[in-house]
Amino acid sequence: MDMKHAAVAACALVLAGSALAQAKPEDEIRYRQSVMNVVGRAFGPMIAMAQDKIPYNKDVVARNSQLLETLVTLPWPSFGPGTDKGAPTKADMKVWSDSAKFKDNAEKLQQAASKVAQSAKGGDEKAVKTALGDLGKACKACHDDFRLKDFRT
Amino acid sequence: MDMKHAAVAACALVLAGSALAQAKPEDEIRYRQSVMNVVGRAFGPMIAMAQDKIPYNKDVVARNSQLLETLVTLPWPSFGPGTDKGAPTKADMKVWSDSAKFKDNAEKLQQAASKVAQSAKGGDEKAVKTALGDLGKACKACHDDFRLKDFRT
Repeated sequence: MDMKHAAVAACALVLAGSALAQAKPEDEIRYRQSVMNVVGRAFGPMIAMAQDKIPYNKDVVARNSQLLETLVTLPWPSFGPGTDKGAPTKADMKVWSDSAKFKDNAEKLQQAASKVAQSAKGGDEKAVKTALGDLGKACKACHDDFRLKDFRT
Repeated sequence: MDMKHAAVAACALVLAGSALAQAKPEDEIRYRQSVMNVVGRAFGPMIAMAQDKIPYNKDVVARNSQLLETLVTLPWPSFGPGTDKGAPTKADMKVWSDSAKFKDNAEKLQQAASKVAQSAKGGDEKAVKTALGDLGKACKACHDDFRLKDFRT
């Protein structure tokens, strides 16, 4: 199974899990923000390592990259129809008006996160740092297009 | 390494990761709430399966239990000194005044979550459901003592 299919399969599982909830828009917004917050904390120390701002710690990288690989599969079902408002959100309306591009960005992010997790298992620090840089670019690419600078209601 | 030591080691890693951030109290509060929100979404479908409210799905259980095992190690460093206020929180002041009991509850939760993840790998549905019930009790025990019903500022 290649990474793209793995990511799609992972999303299907999450969908199966979250279909139960039938959450309200405000809950979906809070959930996707929560996931991104946890993503940020997991990624923060790793990107600092990739940029040689703090010492490389392979245990933190192993742990955080594995967590991140799962986390980045979680928020997408919570950007469904009707979740464009209901609570303060930084999600640009383009998430819904250009959903094909948003989906493509989400898939690229998941592939980049899988690459980091795989590199971490391989144990080559340089490869991990390159993969982390690519993951950072995937984060930024999507934020540039689909995340507003300020909250809207 | 037994589960308790594994949990302690896991926390040490997370501390190593989050020490970098030196987050503000409001950021710590938001982070621990975010983690708990993601925990809830991962646990929700599993406890519904344990209670036979929805069909058992071993793929969802495998995935969510593994995620949960990591997630429940994350929030504790964010209950540090000075994080009792700074944003609306449901954390009872007993978190800080009876920190030994809070820590004990946190460790029990991590052990219960590890038990679910291990059971899921074993593949015995009944054992998984029992472990999920125990995990639910560990959640509730701590919430009863340390989580307020309403937000305080």
